[in-house]
Amino acid sequence: MLDDTRNPTLSFKDRASSLVALKALQLGIKEIVAASTGNAGSSIAGICSRLGLKSRIFVPKNIPEAKRIQIQSYGAEIYLVDGDYDLAFDTCLEISTAKKWYNRNTAYNPLTIEGKKSAAYDIFISTKGNMPDLIFVPTGDGVILSGLYKGLWELKELGWINKIPKLVAVQAEGGNAVVRYFQKKKFEYQPAKSVADSICAGAPRALYMAYEAIIKSNGNAVEITDEEIMEAQKFVAQNYGILLEPSSSSTFAAYKKLLHLNTIGNETAMLLFTGNGLKDTSALRTWNKNIEPVSPNLLKKELTAK
Amino acid sequence: MLDDTRNPTLSFKDRASSLVALKALQLGIKEIVAASTGNAGSSIAGICSRLGLKSRIFVPKNIPEAKRIQIQSYGAEIYLVDGDYDLAFDTCLEISTAKKWYNRNTAYNPLTIEGKKSAAYDIFISTKGNMPDLIFVPTGDGVILSGLYKGLWELKELGWINKIPKLVAVQAEGGNAVVRYFQKKKFEYQPAKSVADSICAGAPRALYMAYEAIIKSNGNAVEITDEEIMEAQKFVAQNYGILLEPSSSSTFAAYKKLLHLNTIGNETAMLLFTGNGLKDTSALRTWNKNIEPVSPNLLKKELTAK
Repeated sequence: MLDDTRNPTLSFKDRASSLVALKALQLGIKEIVAASTGNAGSSIAGICSRLGLKSRIFVPKNIPEAKRIQIQSYGAEIYLVDGDYDLAFDTCLEISTAKKWYNRNTAYNPLTIEGKKSAAYDIFISTKGNMPDLIFVPTGDGVILSGLYKGLWELKELGWINKIPKLVAVQAEGGNAVVRYFQKKKFEYQPAKSVADSICAGAPRALYMAYEAIIKSNGNAVEITDEEIMEAQKFVAQNYGILLEPSSSSTFAAYKKLLHLNTIGNETAMLLFTGNGLKDTSALRTWNKNIEPVSPNLLKKELTAK
Repeated sequence: MLDDTRNPTLSFKDRASSLVALKALQLGIKEIVAASTGNAGSSIAGICSRLGLKSRIFVPKNIPEAKRIQIQSYGAEIYLVDGDYDLAFDTCLEISTAKKWYNRNTAYNPLTIEGKKSAAYDIFISTKGNMPDLIFVPTGDGVILSGLYKGLWELKELGWINKIPKLVAVQAEGGNAVVRYFQKKKFEYQPAKSVADSICAGAPRALYMAYEAIIKSNGNAVEITDEEIMEAQKFVAQNYGILLEPSSSSTFAAYKKLLHLNTIGNETAMLLFTGNGLKDTSALRTWNKNIEPVSPNLLKKELTAK
């Protein structure tokens, strides 16, 4: 697994945000704007805070509370758009174009791909070149997938690896535009809705690039249900001690699904874990119910009687 | 600063829990029990999950929601004691003694001190031996302070450092037993209550050891208000991009207080950051209010008009 849940703002997005923010510094730009389901926004907000830049973040109205609080805490201007992520993206882009603000929107800003490709280098370093046969990638807009492919392609061009691992795009059933495009080679807009909010993109902004990454790596695209995602979240927490947000546990669910379908065989697989569980506790709340206080005496009686 | 907010379970406690859990494995013990305000509990629960051990965690009824959910998610048995941390501690100890369970309670299990002393080594390594003159330590039970002193004392015995940095115990006004003992050399029990829940101990379990660490290092003990803690939390998030839980930002508040009192002078200072902000969002909620969704059209009008 590549565990990016303990990056500075607790998500994979820091790879892209740090590059974008450094570019802004280089260009003398003082302000960065971004649309986000929550992770990209908290990432650029945190990194801007550290570097003395201002940030403006457009988020959909269903943003998980912890992500909203994280963005606000870092001192960003936050705009809660009355709609979904696709609408927040378009609204942000339109305003930033009119105002000539520097925009970090994923896929729109090419440095997001450049930043995310560093994951390929880290996989190369941490495996000492023994690359996995398959890499499972949580996929919303498709930028992690595209960036990863670019980094892997560079490693191959350099002659450091012999072949590019097969990239498996993982999506939720409720936000499966990449999977549908992979199957039918046709894009049809459908609003996205899933417990895995951070891979909910009805109109993936890097759709064609992500498709190319899947095809050229001889990869695959898999969709799983919200139930499978939450089951995987529970399994990973209770067996590996890693608390994931739903979008990240989707890779475990997809891996399990392909194992059951005998699609994997003897191949080695790597899962990307891209966001910390504490960034979105709503799914966790559904399988960890609130509990009532118990008096010490009752606890002593019950527990020592056993 | 020593930033322990991105440890495996996002708190400093992992230093102690990992050692306790490895000892349990060595002894063939299958089950670990602990009382906790939340961080030690989520820490041992997560590490037990990873190592295939069972955990039972006793927590006070005012535990922050995210910490409770984290403990439950890792698969621990959780007992919500109808009272404060001091009562949870005693209840846990009584039951574990009766049942002969292996107990990780802080200060009670000597390996908690041994685990925490590793912070002294990490400070030595990260500063390449250029130790700070002062180290600010969030202090509840006093075990981080005691462990840190032990590690520093060892470094001095080894001849690797010339003198031990002054240790500054930082407490909230509402949970200031160590500060009061430092001033009056007398312990009087007072229930603890503060926004910094994880340093709320009315009866610090390592009080005398912590006192010795302060005295022998020629240190100090400082109390700050909840308002100062939250101001510091905001300042650190908005200027350094680090989201802290209240107990951790207390060290920044205390540093600022001593600076204003001209107590520090030209001395160098290091602050311990021991818990991630997402582990307790209640304080963050007070200064990051909920916001209402705005229509894209209104946003465009408002933002492009400026």
